[in-house]
Amino acid sequence: MVTRVNGIAASDGVGIAPAYLLTKPNLSFEKYHVSDAGSEKKRLHNAFDKIVRNLETTKKNLTGKLSDEDLAIFDTHIAILNDPEMIKQVENRITNQRLNAESAFAEVITKAIKTLQAMTGNEYMQERAADFQNIQDQVLAELEGKELPNLRALDHPVIVIAHSIGPSDTSQMDARFVKGIITDLGGRTSHAAIMARSLQIPAIVGCNDITRKAANGQNVIVDGFEGNAIIEPATTEISQYQKIADKFMNVRQQWQQMVDKPSVTADGSKYKIAANIGSSVDISSAMENGADGVGLFRTEFLYMKSDHLPTEDEQFNAYRKAVEQLKGKRLVVRTLDIGGDKPLRFMPLPKEMNPFLGYRAIRIALDRPEMFRTQLRALLRASEFGKISIMFPMITTLEELQAAKKIYYEEQQKLAVDHPEIGKDIRLGIMIEVPLAALNAERLAAEVDFFSIGTNDLIQYCFAADRGNDSVSYLYQPLNPTFLKLIKHIIDSGHAHNTTVEMCGEMAGDRYSLPLLIGMGLDVYSMSASSILRTRSMMRQLDRKKCQELYQEAITTCDSMPAVKNLVQHWLVEN
Amino acid sequence: MVTRVNGIAASDGVGIAPAYLLTKPNLSFEKYHVSDAGSEKKRLHNAFDKIVRNLETTKKNLTGKLSDEDLAIFDTHIAILNDPEMIKQVENRITNQRLNAESAFAEVITKAIKTLQAMTGNEYMQERAADFQNIQDQVLAELEGKELPNLRALDHPVIVIAHSIGPSDTSQMDARFVKGIITDLGGRTSHAAIMARSLQIPAIVGCNDITRKAANGQNVIVDGFEGNAIIEPATTEISQYQKIADKFMNVRQQWQQMVDKPSVTADGSKYKIAANIGSSVDISSAMENGADGVGLFRTEFLYMKSDHLPTEDEQFNAYRKAVEQLKGKRLVVRTLDIGGDKPLRFMPLPKEMNPFLGYRAIRIALDRPEMFRTQLRALLRASEFGKISIMFPMITTLEELQAAKKIYYEEQQKLAVDHPEIGKDIRLGIMIEVPLAALNAERLAAEVDFFSIGTNDLIQYCFAADRGNDSVSYLYQPLNPTFLKLIKHIIDSGHAHNTTVEMCGEMAGDRYSLPLLIGMGLDVYSMSASSILRTRSMMRQLDRKKCQELYQEAITTCDSMPAVKNLVQHWLVEN
Repeated sequence: MVTRVNGIAASDGVGIAPAYLLTKPNLSFEKYHVSDAGSEKKRLHNAFDKIVRNLETTKKNLTGKLSDEDLAIFDTHIAILNDPEMIKQVENRITNQRLNAESAFAEVITKAIKTLQAMTGNEYMQERAADFQNIQDQVLAELEGKELPNLRALDHPVIVIAHSIGPSDTSQMDARFVKGIITDLGGRTSHAAIMARSLQIPAIVGCNDITRKAANGQNVIVDGFEGNAIIEPATTEISQYQKIADKFMNVRQQWQQMVDKPSVTADGSKYKIAANIGSSVDISSAMENGADGVGLFRTEFLYMKSDHLPTEDEQFNAYRKAVEQLKGKRLVVRTLDIGGDKPLRFMPLPKEMNPFLGYRAIRIALDRPEMFRTQLRALLRASEFGKISIMFPMITTLEELQAAKKIYYEEQQKLAVDHPEIGKDIRLGIMIEVPLAALNAERLAAEVDFFSIGTNDLIQYCFAADRGNDSVSYLYQPLNPTFLKLIKHIIDSGHAHNTTVEMCGEMAGDRYSLPLLIGMGLDVYSMSASSILRTRSMMRQLDRKKCQELYQEAITTCDSMPAVKNLVQHWLVEN
Repeated sequence: MVTRVNGIAASDGVGIAPAYLLTKPNLSFEKYHVSDAGSEKKRLHNAFDKIVRNLETTKKNLTGKLSDEDLAIFDTHIAILNDPEMIKQVENRITNQRLNAESAFAEVITKAIKTLQAMTGNEYMQERAADFQNIQDQVLAELEGKELPNLRALDHPVIVIAHSIGPSDTSQMDARFVKGIITDLGGRTSHAAIMARSLQIPAIVGCNDITRKAANGQNVIVDGFEGNAIIEPATTEISQYQKIADKFMNVRQQWQQMVDKPSVTADGSKYKIAANIGSSVDISSAMENGADGVGLFRTEFLYMKSDHLPTEDEQFNAYRKAVEQLKGKRLVVRTLDIGGDKPLRFMPLPKEMNPFLGYRAIRIALDRPEMFRTQLRALLRASEFGKISIMFPMITTLEELQAAKKIYYEEQQKLAVDHPEIGKDIRLGIMIEVPLAALNAERLAAEVDFFSIGTNDLIQYCFAADRGNDSVSYLYQPLNPTFLKLIKHIIDSGHAHNTTVEMCGEMAGDRYSLPLLIGMGLDVYSMSASSILRTRSMMRQLDRKKCQELYQEAITTCDSMPAVKNLVQHWLVEN
């Protein structure tokens, strides 16, 4: 029977393959007593041995494909299963209490997990707890003869169907086999959606109960353009969608030809399309996708991976490496953007009721300036090896910006004693992501070389809706006409002071937003590397003046986000 | 030695009295074995008996002064101490294990507390856990010969000094004895600050470490006007401040004469000063303070106190009772404003990472409309007994407002079958507390009879700063010039559509904001009952035209909140 499911279109493309449900089977078990402890222990060892063998095989297969760090997880899991102390404890329970293997094992490992979990605030121990949890699932599944989903073991094309998808799942995904993703939860800015776009896997999110509707092995079509899925489609539908998929494959190939083309509209107006990246390893992908530069270089990775405050030299090396790879293109670096939800191992932060409204980003930098000064010095030094821009996140008031600039210039002056020209080419900017800063854009523009509009956060605060919270995901409305007017206000305010206006939120790479943003006069569009060529291709077909008219029509005739979307959809067909 | 402390002025007035530190002594103890179990049990019983006697005396003293509900807490505590099962368990530990009384008692009660705390999600059990915790402190303090602070036992004037102050503390405060409050933490909108203003106790908050600087019994001056405290002041200073305190007493008496005066400026422009209330018992205080009506009637109390969804009749009776007490003045009722941080016993809500940006208020109402419909029907019926206005909280988009209105009119139509005139006098409005709604005020104004600007939340979202979070309390900036312009935009947008513009945040009762708000044209000022007469007295001395000029000067010449505050301070002295 054909089942049709609607969700939120999250990543372009069409995928057709059998369903692969990423849902954990019920692993509950009975506690009972066994008469033959010997054969029960054998059952336990067989299970352990089989899992260890599987882990070793998978590790071998992935060697060279995963980083050494990722591969080390396998060793950790194997070490847990080989731990003689744990094995002894489980065996004792079987021998002395005549417990069945499931109960004996679960008692021992649950105790270990609880001990680790109790060490709250210690991120390392929390990760170890997750490892133990994972081992527990594997052993129980093996003992109960149930199968756990395992993305790493995939060897044929599938459509992954899950309640939600986290970083640990996507790190295991191989785009050769995962032809589509469908989730119950999530919105356009959820982890699943962002990762799917980055991996160029067609995806639909927010389908509510697809995990209950689909079964393993059923044929599924994912239409990531429209946000539709079809379970057990008719053969006519399959061939119909196959044509769309093929056509899109051709389009993708045409996009490839955009790699060296300039980012201009049909009328010749010039823009820049840049990449958002999380670490310097992403730069090669940005360059392959023809980025005009990096519009957002997140520096959190340097801090979050480290067990100590990264030294000035460690940071300098990272920034220098990044900017050198860009070969003369500009690297826009955002200074440290952490907070209660993204804690650092070496700097415990207070637990907050609303971390997104809390002590974070520039607020921490100004409150504990030593860490901030170290980062600025590293950036100033790296700026001698390429074009670097520095932007401050979460600027709310003018005083904060002035305080941040003061610190920056103090560090520059200190370094200038030995290097008089240091930082002369650095451009200073701020993220516009807090409503008050957006409203005060005209005054702030006089203070900086560029703005970068962080639409994900700006939308979150303007609509008072956590972008990670599914209950309020309907309030993620980049095309809301009131919000569009705010964006226009930011752009106009910047331009009134010759301040370049960039955007580095999801909106910058959205096909419905692009003509509106061109109409508003946005200068730089920074997005996932995977969206660059599509955007450039589309940009080159747009006419700036017509885009201006479209924007005017949107804000004068539309009352709501659906009305704007509808207008743009029709306009795109006609233009 | 004189010590001077600066903090945030939180409640007007000057208090002079000995310090009373509301800090818990260190109650840790050694675990050891006793040789004489009999005398150890005696020590335990003596402690229990003394605490029970104290509780009985305090309860007797407070009978008639506290509600029956508040008095019942004493019985609960006495019952815990008299529980034979608990006593037996403690005695057994002393007899059998020869434990000292502290260890034996702590082991037993800690177990009970943990069991109760484990029942997360059950608010009743959490409250019982707090009762047990309280008893534990009392018994340990008694056994160790240490004194616990006890606000209920106060019989002489003091200045209360605490790290922070919670609802359980303020419920015990007797304004006859508490002459001032000073806290380490907190901002202008913290619980301590709001309660202090409501009880008319001079207060300073956010002093960082006053609890470390002051000692019990030291003389302390609290200057709640300027936010200063002096520990061990010179006698000349005492007499100087005594004069200010006396003068303020006179001013307060003059304010009393404002009870029946109209809320007008010196030039005769008419306004309304209303009260914010949490339940109908607050209405008498509002009326005694000459409120022109109730500008914010929070309806959460009806839901949060109840173990079931309040029925339509229960709500109808509460609203009818409230509006009848107002004798023809208007009651502005805010529909249910709950969320992840304010859960209901009968309706578990999901735990959210950022509840202030989550599933709450009108978002819940539209998602689960039955509860909303019940409330609207109760309000429609109550409107036949007085003037009722209804406002929807957390409106973000136009569609939400239209959906809420649709539901309202559906209920009105149903009731109109039997009562054709029902709801004809009801005025419909919305809270403006989400930035997007503020930006879209012009379009929203066409849909409603009135706006009520909720400045606490609006500031919180505009500045992306949780108002309960001390680390970011510097971002509570009602006088920030950019924020003032947003308020002006809301007022102008409302007036363009003949929509009344009210305000029900802390800002409405702030003396520096008042001339600016009059200058902007705000119609209704709703505040704590205790601020009404002061505000009316001040209003009657202001000239509207001069206020308009002040506002213009503020937004054209000031870049920051301190600049605006400074301007208004000087202006007030000159005018």
